[in-house]
Amino acid sequence: MIQLTRLKSKLAEVCDLKGAASVLGWDQQTYMPPGGASARAEQLATLEKLSHEMFISAEMGELLEGAAAEVSGLAFDSDEASLVRVTRRDYDKARKIPAALVAEIARTTSLGMEVWVKAKAESNFVEFQPILEKIYQLHRALANCLGFEERIYDALLDQYEPGMKTSDLEKIFANLKAQLVPMVHTISEKLTNVDDSILHRQYDGQKQWDFGIEVLKRFGYDFEKGRQDKSVHPFTTSFSIHDVRITTRVEEDFLPSALFGTLHEGGHALYDQGISQDLERTPLGAGASLGIHESQSRLWENLVGKSLGFWKFFYPRLQSTFPESLAPVSLQAFYQAINRVQPSLIRIEADEVTYNLHIMIRFELEVDLLEEKLAMADLPAAWNTKMKEYLGIVPPKDAEGVLQDVHWSNGLIGYFPTYSLGNLISVQLFEKAKAENRDIPGQMERGNFSGLLEWLRTHVHYHGRKFLPVELVERATGSHLRVEPYINYLKSKYWEIY
Amino acid sequence: MIQLTRLKSKLAEVCDLKGAASVLGWDQQTYMPPGGASARAEQLATLEKLSHEMFISAEMGELLEGAAAEVSGLAFDSDEASLVRVTRRDYDKARKIPAALVAEIARTTSLGMEVWVKAKAESNFVEFQPILEKIYQLHRALANCLGFEERIYDALLDQYEPGMKTSDLEKIFANLKAQLVPMVHTISEKLTNVDDSILHRQYDGQKQWDFGIEVLKRFGYDFEKGRQDKSVHPFTTSFSIHDVRITTRVEEDFLPSALFGTLHEGGHALYDQGISQDLERTPLGAGASLGIHESQSRLWENLVGKSLGFWKFFYPRLQSTFPESLAPVSLQAFYQAINRVQPSLIRIEADEVTYNLHIMIRFELEVDLLEEKLAMADLPAAWNTKMKEYLGIVPPKDAEGVLQDVHWSNGLIGYFPTYSLGNLISVQLFEKAKAENRDIPGQMERGNFSGLLEWLRTHVHYHGRKFLPVELVERATGSHLRVEPYINYLKSKYWEIY
Repeated sequence: MIQLTRLKSKLAEVCDLKGAASVLGWDQQTYMPPGGASARAEQLATLEKLSHEMFISAEMGELLEGAAAEVSGLAFDSDEASLVRVTRRDYDKARKIPAALVAEIARTTSLGMEVWVKAKAESNFVEFQPILEKIYQLHRALANCLGFEERIYDALLDQYEPGMKTSDLEKIFANLKAQLVPMVHTISEKLTNVDDSILHRQYDGQKQWDFGIEVLKRFGYDFEKGRQDKSVHPFTTSFSIHDVRITTRVEEDFLPSALFGTLHEGGHALYDQGISQDLERTPLGAGASLGIHESQSRLWENLVGKSLGFWKFFYPRLQSTFPESLAPVSLQAFYQAINRVQPSLIRIEADEVTYNLHIMIRFELEVDLLEEKLAMADLPAAWNTKMKEYLGIVPPKDAEGVLQDVHWSNGLIGYFPTYSLGNLISVQLFEKAKAENRDIPGQMERGNFSGLLEWLRTHVHYHGRKFLPVELVERATGSHLRVEPYINYLKSKYWEIY
Repeated sequence: MIQLTRLKSKLAEVCDLKGAASVLGWDQQTYMPPGGASARAEQLATLEKLSHEMFISAEMGELLEGAAAEVSGLAFDSDEASLVRVTRRDYDKARKIPAALVAEIARTTSLGMEVWVKAKAESNFVEFQPILEKIYQLHRALANCLGFEERIYDALLDQYEPGMKTSDLEKIFANLKAQLVPMVHTISEKLTNVDDSILHRQYDGQKQWDFGIEVLKRFGYDFEKGRQDKSVHPFTTSFSIHDVRITTRVEEDFLPSALFGTLHEGGHALYDQGISQDLERTPLGAGASLGIHESQSRLWENLVGKSLGFWKFFYPRLQSTFPESLAPVSLQAFYQAINRVQPSLIRIEADEVTYNLHIMIRFELEVDLLEEKLAMADLPAAWNTKMKEYLGIVPPKDAEGVLQDVHWSNGLIGYFPTYSLGNLISVQLFEKAKAENRDIPGQMERGNFSGLLEWLRTHVHYHGRKFLPVELVERATGSHLRVEPYINYLKSKYWEIY
C-alpha cells in the first residue's frame, strides 16, 4: 500500500498545521495579551492558507486515486477504506471552492463580525443589513460551487452535517413544533410552580471551579490528556487525541454558568479523547459532525447533569461545598430550579424545552433568506412574528432578537440546526446505552459513569469521522434519527416537574 | 520594488510559521498536559520542515536576486537594504546544509537529550560518551558544509554570533583569565566576609511573583504586549513584537531564583518589545545575536538589578513585602548577600565574577574536541583539571562537572561563548548610556528606568537584526568589543564588597 502510506504522510502534515492553528486559537482565547491580536490573525491566515494548499494539491489528488485502488478490497468500515472514502469527499468538496471566493468570504465575514458587534450594541439592524445581505449572496455563490440536488440550503448544511437534507430537517422541525409549542404553552401557565432564585445566590469562584473538576474526573475526562482554563466564551479544542482542552466561565452570582458549561464542554472533550489512537494525524481523528459532537455535550450536560440520579450523588457534595447558599435547599427544590422552563428571548439562556424552538426560528429564516423568499429588510419582523408564534413573546429590541447571535455575521449559515440534531441524537444514544447496559442509571446515582462512557466510547467516540452522522446513528442505535425519543424524554421529565 | 514586495510577502509567511512554532513551544513548556508531548513534537517538526523548505526554495533565491538589484542604491542601514543583505546571508547559509544532515542531527540530538538525562542522573559519563562523540562528528560535518576560513569552530560560532571568530574569543578569554583567576583567588580567601543565608529564609511565592511584576512594570515591560507564566526553566519567547512573553520559576526558600530570573528574562523581553514595528514579519524582527540578546538580559539582571542604586529604591519595598525575613536586615547586608562571590561547581548558580570562567572552560573544551586535539574519553579529566586551575575546586562527580549542562546533548556547540560576550557587551553599553545620559543613575535610585530604556531602545533594540553584533556594538558605543570596561566594573564593584 505504497500510495496509501504516502497519502497518510501528506495528510499527517496537513493535520499538524491544523493542530498548530488550534493551539494558536486556544491561546488567542485564553492567555494572549491584547497586543498579540494582529500578528496572530496573520499567523492563523498563513496556516489556513498553507494547509488548504497542501490539501487541494494535485499530488494529493493523485495519491487519493492511487490509494483508492489499493484499498478497494477492504471492508467499508476498515480504517484504510474509511480514510480514503472520507478524505476523497473532503477533497472533492474543497476543490470545488475557488480560492477567490474563500478569500472574499473571509474578508466579508471578518468585517461582518465588526459591524455586527456595533449594530448589536446599538440594537440597530439597518446597520447590519447590507453586510448580511452580502454574506448571504456569497453563501449562495458558495452553495452553487459546492452543488446540490434538491435545495440550495443542502449544500451549506452538508458542510456541518454531511448527508443531512433540508427536507429532512423540515420534517423534523414540523414534528418538534407540533409537540413543543403546546407543551410550552401549557408550562407557561404554570411558571410560578418552579423558583430558581437559589441559583443566583453567592457561589465562590474557586469552589465552583474545583467542583467542576471533580465532576469531570468522575465522568472520565483525563487530565493527563487535557486541561481546563478560563475564557470569555467556553469552548473545546483538540491538538491531538491526547491533548483535548476545555474552557469555562465562572460567575459568582449564577451557579449554572460554570457548572453546566463545564459539563457541556466536558462532553465534547470525552468524545475527542475517546477517538481511536489509530486515527491520530488523519482527517478521521475528529468528531463525525457538529450534530454528533453536540449530542455528546448535550448528553453529559442535560441527560446526565440535569437528571435526578446524578444529583442524588452530587447534591450532598454541592451542599457541603456551598453550605451558606444551599444547606436549607432540598434536593427536589434544587433539581426543579436547574430544570426551570421559561420562554425567553435569548437562545443561549434557553432551557431544554424551549431551546429547539429558538433553533427552528433560525433554520426557517436561513432557508427563506437563502432561497430569496424573504427580503433581508423584512428579517427583523419575520423574527418577531415567529418568536410570538412559537414562544409567545416578542423581543423589545433587535439586540435581544435577530441581532443576538454572532453566527450569521461570521458566515455560519446552515450551522444552527446541528444544535437541535445534537439534542435529538443525545436522547437516542442515551436510551440505547441504558437499554444495553441496565447498570447505567444505578451507577450514575453512585457517581460512577464508567458504563455510560464505555458504551459511548465503543459505539460513538472510537470511530472518529469514519462514518456519516446518519450511518453512525444507525450503527449505534439500530435506528434512523428519530424525534419521538426526544419528545418522550421531555414529556416524562417535565410533566413530572410541572 | 516589485521583487522586494514579493520577497517580503514570502518571508512574512516563513515568519508566521516560525511564530506559530514559538507559540507551540511556549505552550509545551507552560500549560501542555503530559499526553500532548508526542503530537506536539510532530507538529513542531512539520512547521520546522515547511518553513525551512519555503525559505530555501529556488523562488526565494530568485526574489532575493531581484530585490538585491532593486535596493542596490539604498543606504546600508535602510530597512530594505538590510533586509536583503541579512536574509541573503541566512539564505546562503541555509542552502549549504543538506536536509539529510539536518535530519540526522535532529534525530541524534533528540536521542542525545534522553541519554544525557539518564547519564547525568547516574553521574556516568561513559554512558553519554558515544552519543556525544556522534554529535561532535555531525557538527564537524556541519561546520564543513557551512565553510570557514581559519578554524573549524568559526563555522559553528557564526550560527549564534555572526562575524565572531575563534581567534577573537581566544584573545578575549586570555585577557579575562589573566584578570579573573587572581581576582577569584583573592576573594576566595575572604569568603566569610559576606553571608547570604538571609536569601534562604521563607519568601511567600505569590508575594515574590507580585514583586517581580512590579519591577518589570517599572523597567518598562509592557503587559499589554506580553505576559509572565511559570515554567521549569525560565525563558523568553516572542510571537510578534507585540506579543513577547517571559516565564519564571519561584522557590519559596530561595529569593534570588524568581527575582533575578524575572529581571533576566525581562531584559530579553524589553529587547524584543523594542524592535522597530517596521521589521515585524521579516527576518530582521529579532535580536542581532545571542550575545547581544544576553547583553540585555545581563544588563537588567546584574548591572541594574544587583546595583546599590536599584536597591536604594526597591529594598524598602522588598522589606515591607517580607518583613518577617528582611526587617532586621540592612540595605548594605542585603546588597552584599545578593552579590556574594563563591567559586562553585555549577555554572547556572555562579556569581558575576566566576561566571565567565565556567564559560571559558566550555569554550576551550569545545574547540579542542572539535579540532580533535582532545579525545572524548579524556573530556571529564580535562574538565576537572580546568576547574581546579581556574576556580580552585574539583567536582566530586561528573553530574556536577562535565555532565551538568544540557547544551551539548542538544547539539549546541559554539553557543556557550555568547553568554560571556553578553556580559562584556552589557557593561560597554551601560557605560555608554550613562555617559550620554547622566540622569540614568539618579533615575534608577528613584525607580525610574526611562532614560536607560530609551537609550537602549534607540541604540540597540530598535534595529533588530539589521546589523552584525560587531557593527551594532560599534554603532552604539563608538568602540570595538572590549574586555577592560567589564574588568573595571567587576573590580570597582567587588573590591568594595570584599
